[in-house]
Amino acid sequence: MRPTVLVVTATTAQTLARRAAALDDASPVRGARDLFDLPPGLVYLDGNSLGAPPTAVRAALADAVEQQWGGHLVRAWNDDGWWELPLRVGDRIGAILGAAPGTTLAGDSTSINLYKAYLAAVALRPGRGVAVTDPGSFPTDLHVLGAAAEVAGLEVVTARPVDVPGVLAARSSEVALVALSHLDYRTGELHDLPALTAAAHESGALALWDLCHTAGVVPVDLDRHHVDLAVGCGYKYLGGGPGAPAYLYAAARHHDRLRNPLPGWNGHAEPFAMDTAYRPAPGVARMRTGTPPVLAMLALEAALTVYDHVAVEAARAASLTVTGLFAGVVDTLVPEVEVVTPRTDDRRAAQVALRHPEAYGIVRALAARGVVGDFRTPDVARFGFAPLYVTHADAVTAVLALRAVLDAGEHLSPAFPNRSPVT
Amino acid sequence: MRPTVLVVTATTAQTLARRAAALDDASPVRGARDLFDLPPGLVYLDGNSLGAPPTAVRAALADAVEQQWGGHLVRAWNDDGWWELPLRVGDRIGAILGAAPGTTLAGDSTSINLYKAYLAAVALRPGRGVAVTDPGSFPTDLHVLGAAAEVAGLEVVTARPVDVPGVLAARSSEVALVALSHLDYRTGELHDLPALTAAAHESGALALWDLCHTAGVVPVDLDRHHVDLAVGCGYKYLGGGPGAPAYLYAAARHHDRLRNPLPGWNGHAEPFAMDTAYRPAPGVARMRTGTPPVLAMLALEAALTVYDHVAVEAARAASLTVTGLFAGVVDTLVPEVEVVTPRTDDRRAAQVALRHPEAYGIVRALAARGVVGDFRTPDVARFGFAPLYVTHADAVTAVLALRAVLDAGEHLSPAFPNRSPVT
Repeated sequence: MRPTVLVVTATTAQTLARRAAALDDASPVRGARDLFDLPPGLVYLDGNSLGAPPTAVRAALADAVEQQWGGHLVRAWNDDGWWELPLRVGDRIGAILGAAPGTTLAGDSTSINLYKAYLAAVALRPGRGVAVTDPGSFPTDLHVLGAAAEVAGLEVVTARPVDVPGVLAARSSEVALVALSHLDYRTGELHDLPALTAAAHESGALALWDLCHTAGVVPVDLDRHHVDLAVGCGYKYLGGGPGAPAYLYAAARHHDRLRNPLPGWNGHAEPFAMDTAYRPAPGVARMRTGTPPVLAMLALEAALTVYDHVAVEAARAASLTVTGLFAGVVDTLVPEVEVVTPRTDDRRAAQVALRHPEAYGIVRALAARGVVGDFRTPDVARFGFAPLYVTHADAVTAVLALRAVLDAGEHLSPAFPNRSPVT
Repeated sequence: MRPTVLVVTATTAQTLARRAAALDDASPVRGARDLFDLPPGLVYLDGNSLGAPPTAVRAALADAVEQQWGGHLVRAWNDDGWWELPLRVGDRIGAILGAAPGTTLAGDSTSINLYKAYLAAVALRPGRGVAVTDPGSFPTDLHVLGAAAEVAGLEVVTARPVDVPGVLAARSSEVALVALSHLDYRTGELHDLPALTAAAHESGALALWDLCHTAGVVPVDLDRHHVDLAVGCGYKYLGGGPGAPAYLYAAARHHDRLRNPLPGWNGHAEPFAMDTAYRPAPGVARMRTGTPPVLAMLALEAALTVYDHVAVEAARAASLTVTGLFAGVVDTLVPEVEVVTPRTDDRRAAQVALRHPEAYGIVRALAARGVVGDFRTPDVARFGFAPLYVTHADAVTAVLALRAVLDAGEHLSPAFPNRSPVT
């Protein structure tokens, strides 16, 4: 069942190229691509899964191994400020998220931070036994919430974000926590963080946001919107490298009563007193657990220096024009795929999801043409437009490649059996 | 109150140097120091806190950033085997610990792995409500056990390892878990892992060992001694770098019923099915939680290649002669300090602890002379003899420096106020 061939004329391609070039020239992040190491010619649309390496990382890691670890050995914990890294890197992330210094902590994985945040939130709302979350959340958010619910005796109620206010109205005084992802990892839909946070607060519940898919491309403004807790990873738009340390944000107003369900010596008030009794450190530092992976932390710190050169507001603006261009040209040139991601700017971030029964083959065939996206089961092809290194020209190249793949039936190749890739 | 000056004659020093040289020549790990990058002239006796960098790490990290991450981007999860890293690196660690392939998992911090192991152990012994541990355990072991006990409704009974059999006799059918450290981090005393494991089993309890201070220098033989669960860090003798990923061992016989209290998507049976319901992966992989720090994991993997060249049994033999020499010469030349660490080989590993009221000043003054140890409050100076790069000659140099520090009163300098250093 081959699709109808839709001929893209040379004129159409040239018109699109000119339009893209004009947008790139006017881009508020023009030149930011030079801050990254990318293989030449590759159209990398999977920075929403693993960000490309910022050029600063390479030298930072060499320095970490040779000068700091190799040169100073154990003294580097003091001399190179390793002990303070979770707070120092946390503050850099906080600046990108609109969080005051001292409210964000880097370390552990997103899953571990979710566990800490879920149980910390519930402890702040004693007497309330319900957590509300999106059934379409990334699986780990649900797995970890299940484990936390078992420990805390919570009832988990699932509702799509749009239905959360209704659940809050119905169960108001029972709800301890509303835990949502800022962006739907499959569809690319951006949820209304300010409104949903306010709705949670109206019911006396706390709001916890998973920012994995928006940090670095949307000005989240955590403090301004009175978010209570947030978590996210360091390896997507933040560019810290595969499995980079994650982060946990807790609003300053909660710090004094914040309880870490995974209390380790790194979060002790006096770690080197070697106290057998646990006494939490002041501030968000009490959410530390064990010794953080310093080399990975220094790589993330170097990656975040990208934001010394580019404002997150500029990244936001660029991501909207590049995703808007991509979605619009897909509509015109590839009508047989469905653009799943919302079109309005306030409901979209830096990802566009396309639906097609052979989405898996499409992703594989595009990769063979040098356009890297990813697949999410069962039928979604995801394209991340990390705006600091994906240009409008890349977006046009990607649509033309998609058209060519479908025209040639490359996505139906038996070389691409329909199984989930590891991405 | 200056101590008596004990003159070390040139003859004594020469005799010691000859003895050390003979031991170094006959060492079963001769030449292993070339596998590490160490500043010239430094006597580094803090590898029990942070191991020195194996030379293999530098190139591995450059390759990880430039070729794998930079070259393959998200495809590296498949092409470079990143997804399997926790098991692959776990197997390398397992080989050093006498654990069969598929029983050891690298990742997270020791503290996080302790939480998983404590709760997994308790779940394997339903109906038993007591955990026994050493009150002298490293603080994080106690903090995390406290948190796990709260979740599982456990009573924590503390007893020095020598008294554990008595507690087991008294509380036999109530004890779910005996959780101990293989080595006392302060005194350097090596506990009897086979006997205490057997004692736990006789009462129907499980045995969980913290191997932070013995992995890589003592052949632990986990499988042979029927240990149930074990954890440890990757950054001491294993040399994986500051905050390197930790590990968790679970005996194969427990895998089918092993329950991860921190269930994340990386431990799901089909991670890319994006199942909202959690189904644990087979084997020890179910103890995975979130995405591991790949760069730190690759650094650790490279560090562990040291053990391709040196057997842990050889490291054990060398650590006994070097610590024995150090302790013996301290006895003779520095009688005013107390050697806290046991003298018999079966109760000692690669660390010697000295007690002195001015231990803090001693450690600082020695560091100024290029001999790096560390201090543990209130009065212990610790010296780690990582046997692959600390020679017998280093041990003699360290004792002579200690003698010189005490003779000159350097440890009483007002430059060293008595506060805990961060190490």
